[in-house]
Amino acid sequence: MEKLTLGHGTGGRLTADLIKSFSSQFGEALTGKELEDCSMITSDMAITIDGFTVSPRVFPGGDIGKLAVCGGTNDLAVRGAKPLFLAMSIIAEEGLDQEELLSYGRSAASVCLEIGAKLVAGDTKVVPKGAADGVFITLASVGKTENPLGMSRIETGDKIAVTTSIGRHGATIGALRYDLSVEGLKSDCAALWPLLGPLAKMEGIKAMRDCTRGGLGTALCEWAEGIGKGIEIDESSIPMDQGVLSVCDILGFDPLHLACEGCAIVAYRPDQEDRVLSALRSHPLGIDAAAIGKVVDGHPGMVGMNTASGGMRVVDMPIGEVLPRIC
Amino acid sequence: MEKLTLGHGTGGRLTADLIKSFSSQFGEALTGKELEDCSMITSDMAITIDGFTVSPRVFPGGDIGKLAVCGGTNDLAVRGAKPLFLAMSIIAEEGLDQEELLSYGRSAASVCLEIGAKLVAGDTKVVPKGAADGVFITLASVGKTENPLGMSRIETGDKIAVTTSIGRHGATIGALRYDLSVEGLKSDCAALWPLLGPLAKMEGIKAMRDCTRGGLGTALCEWAEGIGKGIEIDESSIPMDQGVLSVCDILGFDPLHLACEGCAIVAYRPDQEDRVLSALRSHPLGIDAAAIGKVVDGHPGMVGMNTASGGMRVVDMPIGEVLPRIC
Repeated sequence: MEKLTLGHGTGGRLTADLIKSFSSQFGEALTGKELEDCSMITSDMAITIDGFTVSPRVFPGGDIGKLAVCGGTNDLAVRGAKPLFLAMSIIAEEGLDQEELLSYGRSAASVCLEIGAKLVAGDTKVVPKGAADGVFITLASVGKTENPLGMSRIETGDKIAVTTSIGRHGATIGALRYDLSVEGLKSDCAALWPLLGPLAKMEGIKAMRDCTRGGLGTALCEWAEGIGKGIEIDESSIPMDQGVLSVCDILGFDPLHLACEGCAIVAYRPDQEDRVLSALRSHPLGIDAAAIGKVVDGHPGMVGMNTASGGMRVVDMPIGEVLPRIC
Repeated sequence: MEKLTLGHGTGGRLTADLIKSFSSQFGEALTGKELEDCSMITSDMAITIDGFTVSPRVFPGGDIGKLAVCGGTNDLAVRGAKPLFLAMSIIAEEGLDQEELLSYGRSAASVCLEIGAKLVAGDTKVVPKGAADGVFITLASVGKTENPLGMSRIETGDKIAVTTSIGRHGATIGALRYDLSVEGLKSDCAALWPLLGPLAKMEGIKAMRDCTRGGLGTALCEWAEGIGKGIEIDESSIPMDQGVLSVCDILGFDPLHLACEGCAIVAYRPDQEDRVLSALRSHPLGIDAAAIGKVVDGHPGMVGMNTASGGMRVVDMPIGEVLPRIC
């Protein structure tokens, strides 16, 4: 059987296949058909888990501690679940500076205070030098919702908005890794609950999803495949930061596949568009929100993009390695 | 500030200090005063998290997949909480055999089926070759109890039993690591819910704790310090396996500090001793259960052991490295 490749960690097609194979080993011990990002464990409590291995561990806009709490709780926020309880597991390499580790604790704590979540359980392992690179953080998050949003509510004709300009986290890490200096570029790393919590309760909101590994393109593909409908987006309407475009030009990345860590897509009933966009734009995390496309009956399971040059391009999940250890 | 050492990962004194420093960074964002192994998140649901980095990943008596579910859910079982929902995060090294990873899924699944727990959420990250050694698994477990046990119930005069012979997991990993062949020695790795679930409901049961990293000695010290009372144990009453003693003789380990993964201590009202011991011994995981000591008013916060040679020895948590990557 095949060996794991970095492509299995990009959040794209290979990751999806790997998770499917791994889940299938659990048979009756699995809830649902496949491992989910986020699952209900009582009538009103949802749980999610995420591992963070980002390198470098400190980057413009955040660090691995902030990223862990943002990334971990954003999976809850997009279901309309208020993040309440966090359990954090740390795997650290011998020789790591203790003060560095504590600084990630402070970063994590400051996001907790912002969103009102509490750390309730933890674990620490130290492995010998060379057995891990620095520190990895895994965060399990439990949140509360009476009425979880989910993609099954999406219908043909629904519109899709993106909450902010795309690819900033991936471009920031890419620029650091390749030693590019791009003025003003920083990660979008942010906890989305303050933006999405109120939105989740608005009339006509169908589903939300955060764009993380694999970027906007992968999130849209997961919806199209999950609901068995087509999605059409307009390239010209997607908010993009000049710095992100520069990094993409130089390194040959597709902005649609670059990771975000404070960006979500929202599906809503078209008659609610003005209210949805104005609610998003009234929050600092959603100032650049834009309607980017719609759900269609054609090309089920596929995402098409009307390009700026007038053609139509198929948007797929990335297959190989985009940029390892982005989150 | 100091750098992390392997001693910070042994589960002993340095681990306790590290967790205290890390927790204190969270201030108001922390539930309670310190990070707990296991915390209540609703009136009847408890959560725990554990990272697993064991090396080698396959050992007599188990593998990292089985260990993750046993070790993760045992923290719930000792509180009397039935393990129900598991969230699993995998950090794997590029080049790992996919079939090997799937085999850990099957091992984990078989423990899930045994105890009736379900996998509800997951995450997979792949890091470049050399950035992690093989695979690390983190498991968050949620369980249900109406009446969580805890050390605060322990009183002077209560007796303490251990459920099985100690140090088998640590001795097994130590023997493998140092290439010793010890006939019949295998890890005690087991899910304790089937043994401890019924016990938790019995009259007079005060508290239970699984002995993992740091072994029986550390678990007893945590109780003595946590309740501010003394604990006295009798060396001759502690069940020990001949293979474990051989490994300790050769490698210079103290069996009291060797890790267990299917062993717990139980504190109970002395008039219940016969019922407690016979309940334990009626289950295959508790056949070797024995009463080993009692809670006393003297030497508060300290554990004393009446040695086989007639003296009294102070039992402390291990300070430096015992054996890295044991779990």
